Amino acid sequence: MKIRRSERMVLISNYLINHPYELTSLSTFAERYDSAKSSISEDISIIKRALETSEIGEIETITGASGGVIFTPTISDQEAHKVVEELCVRMAESDRILPGGYIYLSDLLSTPTILRQIGRIIAKAFKDQKIDAVMTVATKGVPLANAVADVLNVPFVIVRRDLKITEGSTVSVNYASGSSGRIEKMFLSKRSLKPDSRVLIVDDFLKGGGTINGMISLLSEFDSTLAGVAIFADNVQGKRDEMNYKSLLSVTDIDIKNAKISVQLGNIFED
Amino acid sequence: MKIRRSERMVLISNYLINHPYELTSLSTFAERYDSAKSSISEDISIIKRALETSEIGEIETITGASGGVIFTPTISDQEAHKVVEELCVRMAESDRILPGGYIYLSDLLSTPTILRQIGRIIAKAFKDQKIDAVMTVATKGVPLANAVADVLNVPFVIVRRDLKITEGSTVSVNYASGSSGRIEKMFLSKRSLKPDSRVLIVDDFLKGGGTINGMISLLSEFDSTLAGVAIFADNVQGKRDEMNYKSLLSVTDIDIKNAKISVQLGNIFED
Repeated sequence: MKIRRSERMVLISNYLINHPYELTSLSTFAERYDSAKSSISEDISIIKRALETSEIGEIETITGASGGVIFTPTISDQEAHKVVEELCVRMAESDRILPGGYIYLSDLLSTPTILRQIGRIIAKAFKDQKIDAVMTVATKGVPLANAVADVLNVPFVIVRRDLKITEGSTVSVNYASGSSGRIEKMFLSKRSLKPDSRVLIVDDFLKGGGTINGMISLLSEFDSTLAGVAIFADNVQGKRDEMNYKSLLSVTDIDIKNAKISVQLGNIFED
Repeated sequence: MKIRRSERMVLISNYLINHPYELTSLSTFAERYDSAKSSISEDISIIKRALETSEIGEIETITGASGGVIFTPTISDQEAHKVVEELCVRMAESDRILPGGYIYLSDLLSTPTILRQIGRIIAKAFKDQKIDAVMTVATKGVPLANAVADVLNVPFVIVRRDLKITEGSTVSVNYASGSSGRIEKMFLSKRSLKPDSRVLIVDDFLKGGGTINGMISLLSEFDSTLAGVAIFADNVQGKRDEMNYKSLLSVTDIDIKNAKISVQLGNIFED
């Protein structure tokens, strides 16, 4: 397909953005658009400048016979802060408080525009880690894990609190559930995670840490290691230093009587 | 920000692709890139030709004071067929058969590249419907619903088979579960779906149709209407005409003894 240069750049940039963390050789584009590799190379440098200046992502060029280009998505600090500050405001809406002091989050975690932005912010925070898979626990963590995995272009695995026949053989671990105050079980399908994976754990809410610790102990059952923990909103009060995680939001107080939720930026922007 | 025309086109196309089904005025781009509206208009027509020729999506221009451009994602029939044919091959892998004749699907439904493509294929199949929300049932339907909602740029809602305290007030309906052979309950948070919504129901597997019928009866509890039903894989045997849905794959036989799954294209490409 022979097309005009400007059209070609639109298509190449779209391809790279849809194939993050993947190496694509310049010959692929040269053949597809019936162009010289040198022209493609010039296109890439213009695309690189556009995407990097606006902090949409970075393009790395690998030279040599098996070389090519890799796009790594990112988000500017300014945009990331804006997104999280808007989430702070929405989280503090008084009608989110449910009986028992729980916070209703499902609307935020089922809006594609929000999920896409959260995915980019979390992926950026762990960009120095080599991540093979994203893990979460059903059900509310799933859209978050999906969003982060989408940006990182890796699969996600879903740990379940109940045993499902459609998952085949599973491995289970016990964990201390803060919400029920009991020891419960969580299950992961044996075939869902390859050994030696480096795993980023993602969840919607962190309070006592029992669920996260359960997932961490599952990792060793799969001979895999923890690359990090990312949380949408924490509510850990004084225990913030005891736990190692990055959160977008931090809920410091839930005042049921006055229907008031105090929310601040989480620690994801701290270094 | 004043930048070169070719860079501007990369950024405008990226913006449009990330804001599907949204009206953006040309002034937005003219201001952002410090350019004349006529130049932006020319950029858009080049972007339009590039994206439409490669069937990445369509760009519609609305004229007038409140006008602008809207990007609608699509996928070429050729690419869609290729994706579904590859899924056919993967679905027929003999080690997917689980005890009881269930099929293991979780690996396919947790791979971002597959989900993105499925999302585009399903969204295209329902492009003539005005869709306000995507509905599914926890847990395996969630990534699918997320993928479709992402392309359509609408929220998704998650029906649950158990009652969760973090969902607030819920509405429940009974449904006949084919897998347990019993009448079960499903729940949807009251605040998760606005009245008068047109809803696309998405699920991973369709056999007896009990779960889908349950979700359809939930819609009327929310004064909402059905826009369509999309299924990853059906296994409805002779009842295909009784049910109104579009499926990517159709499982025609599960031969447990010989560990053989027969899979063919679903009806999503039929007209």
